[in-house]
Amino acid sequence: MTNADSVICTLACPDRPGIVADVSANIFAAGYNILEAGQFTDRSTGRFFMRLECGAAPGQSGFEAFSKGFAPVAQKWDMDWKMRPAARKTRVMLLVSKFHHCLSDLIYRWRTDEFDMDIVAIVSNHPADTFDNIDISGIPFHHLPVSRANKAEQEEQIWSLVQQTQADLVVLARYMQILSDELSARLSGKCINIHHSFLPSFKGAKPYHQAFERGVKVIGATAHYVTSDLDEGPIIHQDIEAISHADSPEDLIRKGRDIERLVLARAVQFHLEDRVILNGTKTVVFAK
Amino acid sequence: MTNADSVICTLACPDRPGIVADVSANIFAAGYNILEAGQFTDRSTGRFFMRLECGAAPGQSGFEAFSKGFAPVAQKWDMDWKMRPAARKTRVMLLVSKFHHCLSDLIYRWRTDEFDMDIVAIVSNHPADTFDNIDISGIPFHHLPVSRANKAEQEEQIWSLVQQTQADLVVLARYMQILSDELSARLSGKCINIHHSFLPSFKGAKPYHQAFERGVKVIGATAHYVTSDLDEGPIIHQDIEAISHADSPEDLIRKGRDIERLVLARAVQFHLEDRVILNGTKTVVFAK
Amino acid sequence: MTNADSVICTLACPDRPGIVADVSANIFAAGYNILEAGQFTDRSTGRFFMRLECGAAPGQSGFEAFSKGFAPVAQKWDMDWKMRPAARKTRVMLLVSKFHHCLSDLIYRWRTDEFDMDIVAIVSNHPADTFDNIDISGIPFHHLPVSRANKAEQEEQIWSLVQQTQADLVVLARYMQILSDELSARLSGKCINIHHSFLPSFKGAKPYHQAFERGVKVIGATAHYVTSDLDEGPIIHQDIEAISHADSPEDLIRKGRDIERLVLARAVQFHLEDRVILNGTKTVVFAK
Amino acid sequence: MTNADSVICTLACPDRPGIVADVSANIFAAGYNILEAGQFTDRSTGRFFMRLECGAAPGQSGFEAFSKGFAPVAQKWDMDWKMRPAARKTRVMLLVSKFHHCLSDLIYRWRTDEFDMDIVAIVSNHPADTFDNIDISGIPFHHLPVSRANKAEQEEQIWSLVQQTQADLVVLARYMQILSDELSARLSGKCINIHHSFLPSFKGAKPYHQAFERGVKVIGATAHYVTSDLDEGPIIHQDIEAISHADSPEDLIRKGRDIERLVLARAVQFHLEDRVILNGTKTVVFAK
Repeated sequence: MTNADSVICTLACPDRPGIVADVSANIFAAGYNILEAGQFTDRSTGRFFMRLECGAAPGQSGFEAFSKGFAPVAQKWDMDWKMRPAARKTRVMLLVSKFHHCLSDLIYRWRTDEFDMDIVAIVSNHPADTFDNIDISGIPFHHLPVSRANKAEQEEQIWSLVQQTQADLVVLARYMQILSDELSARLSGKCINIHHSFLPSFKGAKPYHQAFERGVKVIGATAHYVTSDLDEGPIIHQDIEAISHADSPEDLIRKGRDIERLVLARAVQFHLEDRVILNGTKTVVFAK
Repeated sequence: MTNADSVICTLACPDRPGIVADVSANIFAAGYNILEAGQFTDRSTGRFFMRLECGAAPGQSGFEAFSKGFAPVAQKWDMDWKMRPAARKTRVMLLVSKFHHCLSDLIYRWRTDEFDMDIVAIVSNHPADTFDNIDISGIPFHHLPVSRANKAEQEEQIWSLVQQTQADLVVLARYMQILSDELSARLSGKCINIHHSFLPSFKGAKPYHQAFERGVKVIGATAHYVTSDLDEGPIIHQDIEAISHADSPEDLIRKGRDIERLVLARAVQFHLEDRVILNGTKTVVFAK
Repeated sequence: MTNADSVICTLACPDRPGIVADVSANIFAAGYNILEAGQFTDRSTGRFFMRLECGAAPGQSGFEAFSKGFAPVAQKWDMDWKMRPAARKTRVMLLVSKFHHCLSDLIYRWRTDEFDMDIVAIVSNHPADTFDNIDISGIPFHHLPVSRANKAEQEEQIWSLVQQTQADLVVLARYMQILSDELSARLSGKCINIHHSFLPSFKGAKPYHQAFERGVKVIGATAHYVTSDLDEGPIIHQDIEAISHADSPEDLIRKGRDIERLVLARAVQFHLEDRVILNGTKTVVFAK
Repeated sequence: MTNADSVICTLACPDRPGIVADVSANIFAAGYNILEAGQFTDRSTGRFFMRLECGAAPGQSGFEAFSKGFAPVAQKWDMDWKMRPAARKTRVMLLVSKFHHCLSDLIYRWRTDEFDMDIVAIVSNHPADTFDNIDISGIPFHHLPVSRANKAEQEEQIWSLVQQTQADLVVLARYMQILSDELSARLSGKCINIHHSFLPSFKGAKPYHQAFERGVKVIGATAHYVTSDLDEGPIIHQDIEAISHADSPEDLIRKGRDIERLVLARAVQFHLEDRVILNGTKTVVFAK
């Protein structure tokens, strides 16, 4: 969790000598102190990435002034950049089908203040009573059943909701519908999916059954940003668990739930704390 | 490690009630005691698998009598079975190219009595001085350089060596040559390869570079029996390690060596202790 | 998860040749088939342990007859033994203080049919509204606040509830009260606690703060049976997670919750499936 | 592995706003570029830690000038600091008793250029032929058998060797002698030990036997700096492996060797790359 009164800045630009000196001088001049910093240079592309968490010293000039003052620095080095008060909560929309272990987990982390976000909507192709055992009280719920016929229409609804709720992040928490290319493009970099295999193994449907058939000795889960290329989006986090010949597909599904929950939660946390920066088809993750 | 004076039996047959009762009655009658037992029924095929380690009670009838007495039981239940004194060492041939971390590791485990085997030959497509820093003294070394022109011929040499040395097991300890279908078939169930990815991800060449390009957050290694279908053989063991965006392909190769060593060593150990039984394109592994 | 129509038997006795033969002959004669079996001989004590899951063949004699028929076998070999239909659900009482992540997790697994048990009561030293975000509807809730003055009395209440509800298992799901020697003794072998460190490191209070002070690079959790000797009970399951210098005590507490949940859930699952047998101050766990 | 032509700088000082700005401005002015940077503020003590790897831009002023120019910056902020060309190899002395798996592993990593160091001496209380299967050719070997009577004298020998060889780092690679307080103090911050348990569990002798007796479900290893307080030194790295009731003490010792090797190798690598900074009784590890 980040400090509530701090400012988080992420940036990416062509690597050249002097960036850190310039950035840190600017931060100091603005009356801020660097609380945490991560940096990375991708040597294969010559691109520089940085994440900064800055605390305000007494008498500093305020976030707006800080941000405004940083703009010329960003322009000088040709940066893609973002800056926000850590206290400004990310607005999150959750999409889910009938398997609700990830939904339940994310809501629990939110209710217990582990995740610093606002849940602005839950969207499901299954009715609300699917989630009767989960406390979704106070969260707007939208039942948008999807058929081949109405898929485009329902995706428009989802997109409308994203706009109306001003959602910053859409999480596919085991949402068993493939997003269209168009919606994927609209949500680029702001939509996280959990796939129930250690990608690139077992893309597509029924990965645990694929794993069972292949006889692998580990199963896993992958959290990634959604792109129009199914199961090919930039990977944020992955983990695995050992299995044995004695595990049936049902055992794999059961064991997999624990990995899915954890991998998605970790990826969402990284995103909420602005620890993930896109790097083409890959990610830079400044994990703590 | 198994008990030196014990007998190890593995068997597979169609599952029917009464197998364990019959097998254990026979073992008891022969003057043996079950020291360790593992069993598994594959519910998708109805096939039963068992591994037994039996200790001789005083006055028992001896291995040959035990084995002979077991044959009718095996026949009755239509078993594929194997029985051997644990003290009879497996004869192992090691194949290696220029990366010798797995070779070095296996030899160290053998010299320190961790692995109960006889190394009957080392075969390499690189000359003996490639391995100058490894103590291969006392192990017959065969330099069999492979070109497109002589591949068939050199494989005949390998096969001859397997026969001459009566090798029970061939280990491809980072042997960077693809075995022909014919040799793969000849070595069926007795040839273990280490592939430097968590299969089925990143089959084929340069898996660490593939992993780097894809931006995965874990890398792994897979030990499997060799079949004519490249990187598709029955998997014995797998493990992974977490990586980050900061790891270059060279870092992955370096970190991967530790996983490869361990995964191959574990798989070889399982095989040496007869803990692995083939189950079609999969394995049953009675790990301790 | 076990087969609903099967019988689970666990037994322990002095190791002698012939036990497996006798047991399996008896099972076969009773019209049952062994679906899964695990056995272990503790060579330091000469004690033999076995767990059997048996399926009924058509025309078998029924559980009562099976159990009755097994009694002489058990007597002959001087066995501690237990046999139950897998379908007979374990009755579980959950004790919890104000941190409810383990409680929430266990209830979720129960509601989604991952755990085959009846929850007969929740007991807490905190009031029911502490658990407002968890669906505990339909589960009897008992608020038993504990002070130095009323501790003995409240423990009597707990023991009464165990008896009234016929609870087979008591789970201390982060119950921050130390049970008295007397209650510990009464619940011997049927009470599981989750301790938030990898025991024997960091016994007692505030283990994450202890871990922070010591500067360890991993934290962990331990599920164990409760004994009168605090944090010294037989260990059922343990796991760990890597941490770094950058983790504050609060980070450790947060990361620890995920390990605690998983370790306790796994231990409870093992217990529910009769996979754990006590072996003095240790356990034998026939994990699948 | 670090870049051969780069400069590595580590520093620690009281945390105040402006340090990073000042340091990075100085680096830029000296004609260097930051290739990798890690920083950390210990909020419990207010101490700031930083590691920098800097590459020389064309026309830079050379290491000596860089270092000299940095001194006033370091003085201004009251830094404990170190700067060295990455190409300057660390001089390492290895101490070992009869179990040589860690020695063998470190030497292999050195011979295969994984570890960028000079091994200046091997010291053992066992004779050279203990290590016959390890290629220690070209490394000065010193046999210093230790008895209660000659311990002080032999430690003087070790200290003399450290001075003569100008060893920067002493690695206790399973050296089964406890260093005296005096020698521990002399080697403060430059002597790494591998302890075969996950400390603080199982301090002292025979940790695997202690683990067996306690019935833990994981074993581990800990690499730490040596202090006069046995097994209490600052921890650099730890890892664990799952075990079961079926593992004998001998199995634990065998499985433990793999963990010990890896944990020690990782810790030595971190030290060789100046990734470890002492923080009182703890360490800051800027792992890549």
